[in-house]
Amino acid sequence: MSRIAYVNGIYVPLRDACVHVEDRGFQFADGVYEVCEVFGGRLVDQTRHLARLKRSLSELGIGMPVGEGALKVILRETVRRNRVRDGLVYLQVTRGAAKRDFVFPAPDTPPTLVVTARSVDRSKAEAGAANGISVISLPDNRWERVDIKSTGLLPNALARQRAKERGAKEAWFVDRDGYVTEGAASNAWIITRENTLLTRPAESGILRGVTRTTLLDLARRDNLLVSERPFTLAEAKAAKEAFVTAATALIMPVVRIDDTVIGDGKPGALTARLRARFHEVAERSL
Amino acid sequence: MSRIAYVNGIYVPLRDACVHVEDRGFQFADGVYEVCEVFGGRLVDQTRHLARLKRSLSELGIGMPVGEGALKVILRETVRRNRVRDGLVYLQVTRGAAKRDFVFPAPDTPPTLVVTARSVDRSKAEAGAANGISVISLPDNRWERVDIKSTGLLPNALARQRAKERGAKEAWFVDRDGYVTEGAASNAWIITRENTLLTRPAESGILRGVTRTTLLDLARRDNLLVSERPFTLAEAKAAKEAFVTAATALIMPVVRIDDTVIGDGKPGALTARLRARFHEVAERSL
Repeated sequence: MSRIAYVNGIYVPLRDACVHVEDRGFQFADGVYEVCEVFGGRLVDQTRHLARLKRSLSELGIGMPVGEGALKVILRETVRRNRVRDGLVYLQVTRGAAKRDFVFPAPDTPPTLVVTARSVDRSKAEAGAANGISVISLPDNRWERVDIKSTGLLPNALARQRAKERGAKEAWFVDRDGYVTEGAASNAWIITRENTLLTRPAESGILRGVTRTTLLDLARRDNLLVSERPFTLAEAKAAKEAFVTAATALIMPVVRIDDTVIGDGKPGALTARLRARFHEVAERSL
Repeated sequence: MSRIAYVNGIYVPLRDACVHVEDRGFQFADGVYEVCEVFGGRLVDQTRHLARLKRSLSELGIGMPVGEGALKVILRETVRRNRVRDGLVYLQVTRGAAKRDFVFPAPDTPPTLVVTARSVDRSKAEAGAANGISVISLPDNRWERVDIKSTGLLPNALARQRAKERGAKEAWFVDRDGYVTEGAASNAWIITRENTLLTRPAESGILRGVTRTTLLDLARRDNLLVSERPFTLAEAKAAKEAFVTAATALIMPVVRIDDTVIGDGKPGALTARLRARFHEVAERSL
């Protein structure tokens, strides 16, 4: 079945889905995006994704392309038309198309809205999680406003490519003080030898991941020890367990950081339990 | 006359010119660009622009979309079809369209090439230069690899917009040590009370502007005092003259930085002379 995309009011075959060459998303990375997991045909954490979308747009002074109710319908309809049961829905909003100029275009320029969806083979994802992933560390060379989920993702793409070339799946950015900020497309977590979950506070330097927030809630509800504080790369390498969170991977165990094996090189027991709990809660909440 | 764009092998009316929604330029800012001045129907400094394009692509591991000879033909043809005598030609190359993934797509994925051209009213530009422009200063919050002319321009667009809101035309980024790096879309220069031209070295922290390089050559040939060294915002505010260089503005006098008037608030004499000389040399070299 050929895939369908939503572009500015119209559902079109994905192969024909295009935006104008003077779209500010193409020429200036002047736009934002969200990726939601689809689970049993429904969007996981949709409310939080839409809240974050609105925050990103508001920080950049871009208007919502359609009302929130209409956006929910479009997301659902794109998922339906692509017959996605388990997979992802991707949405991107830009400041619209206008004659090229760094300065914002006229306020009545309509923002661009693109939505796509695709199926993901859940059994493959589960097999990946059973093995865990390797990550590499790289100096964080990104701009300061990574709290905005912008499409200015070139450093992230370069980092992921570098990870792949080194046999890893993710890159963790490290700030100039030696603290891990986050992954190229995930939040970074470790579990200390005292069984405390550590993740960097989302006040600055990272994106407030939706899966991160949901896991924080869950862990606190389950009375686990949780601390939002920065941790160094050295702490991470000495950790009992490590994992990443992302809407596209949920909770993914990390079994190696650079050349250091974490724990016994297999996904940690608490990480595995959290992943199972997360699925359970996600299923129940739908 | 309606404008024409070149997109991946085809000349199309600009209004119909589009790229795929999964173009990596749109989803990841995974691409680079160049803007050349067109003067009397011919491209100014084409050789240097193409050399810089090749460097940007090489730093990112993106292939040239077409050979250099073919690219020159496309640039010339786009200028011709748009009947541009005085104006700009814009070219953008991305890593191409592929199923969304941070990791690079298969090596045989063809890069995307977009070229547009437009006329600019030279008398307006001259009138602007006769008055000079105001600039504001902002903390440099960009990523580290600004030496690559990537389309990850969101911080630059935000800075230019901020400048506009404060009645200025450009924003100068200032690093954490108080040194001016460059403008949002130009290189920054000052002239000291000893008549020395100062501009930041292009080893890191700035883009090596083509107009900057050409002016350095010209100034040295004319036996002016030139020093490539970083200068602070305070030095800039105390300077005798100031200006910016960019392919889109050539040499544009700066008459105010934040709330500080430079010199007597009119374009400086040496700046005006450099601008005239630049035009003269550009005309002769065509």
